[in-house]
Amino acid sequence: MTLPSIVPGRTKLGWIGTGVMGKSMCAHLMRTGFAMTIYNRSHAKTQELVGLGAKLASTPAEVAQQSDVVFVMVGFPHDVRQVIMGEDGVLTKLRSQGIVVDMTTSSPQLAQDIFRAAKAKNCHSLDAPVSGGDIGAKEARLSIMVGGEREPFEALKPCWEAMGKTVQFQGAAGSGQHTKMVNQILIANNMVGLCEAMLYAYRSGLDPVEVLKSVSSGAAGSWSLSNLAPRVLNNDFAPGFYVEHFVKDMGIALEEARRMNLALPGLALAHQLYVALCAQGMSRLGTQALIQALATLSGFDWRNRT
Amino acid sequence: MTLPSIVPGRTKLGWIGTGVMGKSMCAHLMRTGFAMTIYNRSHAKTQELVGLGAKLASTPAEVAQQSDVVFVMVGFPHDVRQVIMGEDGVLTKLRSQGIVVDMTTSSPQLAQDIFRAAKAKNCHSLDAPVSGGDIGAKEARLSIMVGGEREPFEALKPCWEAMGKTVQFQGAAGSGQHTKMVNQILIANNMVGLCEAMLYAYRSGLDPVEVLKSVSSGAAGSWSLSNLAPRVLNNDFAPGFYVEHFVKDMGIALEEARRMNLALPGLALAHQLYVALCAQGMSRLGTQALIQALATLSGFDWRNRT
Repeated sequence: MTLPSIVPGRTKLGWIGTGVMGKSMCAHLMRTGFAMTIYNRSHAKTQELVGLGAKLASTPAEVAQQSDVVFVMVGFPHDVRQVIMGEDGVLTKLRSQGIVVDMTTSSPQLAQDIFRAAKAKNCHSLDAPVSGGDIGAKEARLSIMVGGEREPFEALKPCWEAMGKTVQFQGAAGSGQHTKMVNQILIANNMVGLCEAMLYAYRSGLDPVEVLKSVSSGAAGSWSLSNLAPRVLNNDFAPGFYVEHFVKDMGIALEEARRMNLALPGLALAHQLYVALCAQGMSRLGTQALIQALATLSGFDWRNRT
Repeated sequence: MTLPSIVPGRTKLGWIGTGVMGKSMCAHLMRTGFAMTIYNRSHAKTQELVGLGAKLASTPAEVAQQSDVVFVMVGFPHDVRQVIMGEDGVLTKLRSQGIVVDMTTSSPQLAQDIFRAAKAKNCHSLDAPVSGGDIGAKEARLSIMVGGEREPFEALKPCWEAMGKTVQFQGAAGSGQHTKMVNQILIANNMVGLCEAMLYAYRSGLDPVEVLKSVSSGAAGSWSLSNLAPRVLNNDFAPGFYVEHFVKDMGIALEEARRMNLALPGLALAHQLYVALCAQGMSRLGTQALIQALATLSGFDWRNRT
């Protein structure tokens, strides 16, 4: 048995999880010419894609029954486990040599469990989390980090190219998720630095806009500083990426690190500050809201600063 | 009394502190056509500039006697205080309307002390720390962050342009130093993130070079990641910027923050990890050596990893 080649117009794709990210990514695949069957827990979020010609299924298993390759983009690891390995999950119906691709940011251990379960059914699995947020998804500029076997990774090239700009194979099952954890460790610490720097600038009486001109383009520069500091200064806490999802990601990274006997004190601190942000009722804001937890720590409200 | 205009070939400049940074910056001013009198505690480090035509003085006061404007680029705040306000310091001999410019990264409080002392002698002072490291100094691509009064800042335009690429006036005396603290707060947290991310990548069995391809150009990207992660992976700990100077900078920022009633837990953690690095005898390595303190924390030697 060999892998079927993946051809727009012939290969049938499935998509589970049509939230902000999933919707854009799925739409790119459809525009490339793939026939698509979709499922989402809340049907309201499927309408746009149905309008574009997607078939709506009533369970993940039904998606699998109609598809050669099934993509998953849901919220939390327990959702991933449910839609792939649960009672009405993808693996109950996926055909032999079918491929399931989990693009949710989830646990490397779970990716390995799925890999073994897929193998047992003569199927393939890849873990392929992404970085780049809602904008990256919309503009098909995602970084896609892939773990699993190289053959299905290569076979899916037309799909990766429809959704992403940087596509890297990272190694065995779980390696895509591990790479995403590296990404989140970087962002977590960058966010603490960005918010502490903005607090210091404010409290020392500097003009933060002039300060950004001095620090953005040099050795202190980062994507976070260029893209999120202006939102912090404008009290714009609309979610590009939800606090509660970031807390989940950092929790996974800390648990994995503990398992590998690795202490990550900076990540642990960032995680706790974000947990505090949730405790203050801000779990559905964007990650740049961290400044509010840090301001509260020093006894003031960032939004009401003078 | 008004400020003299600053003209290459006519205005006489002084330079105190001809280490790695100072030497390059001073040489740029000389190439622009300024006559230069220099001083350094260790004479060996002045030879190259003397070869280019600089006059050597035997005290900071003697530099001031020969100069309309004196630049200072030394190591620590106590050195700054000594060469500007000490017994044989710049302010004992600087002429009325002369300007002293401290480009050392130093305390905002000290910058304000110097400003007042200069005023009392009818002189001007500016605090003008820089970012960009030895390479930025060499290539005249520094970011220069200036505090003090706007008039001497504007007057010195030909000098800034000879040394830097991004030159910003940030406000009253001390504001240049405060802005540099913002810069260092960003870098400190970025460095923790970078090192923790590289440790996680290593311990989870990923190929760090492939990982960098996935994470560098997206939302986790930063100057530190692009420039220092490759050195970390190559066990290259040669100093672009000394650990001991970074510890000094973070100490100043934490002390200033405490004075402003501002808690900066991320900076405090980074500071402590760098203090640990000094305790392990690595204060004269580059800041990227932080990975060794973090690896030691988890019980292994980064340089002897397999």
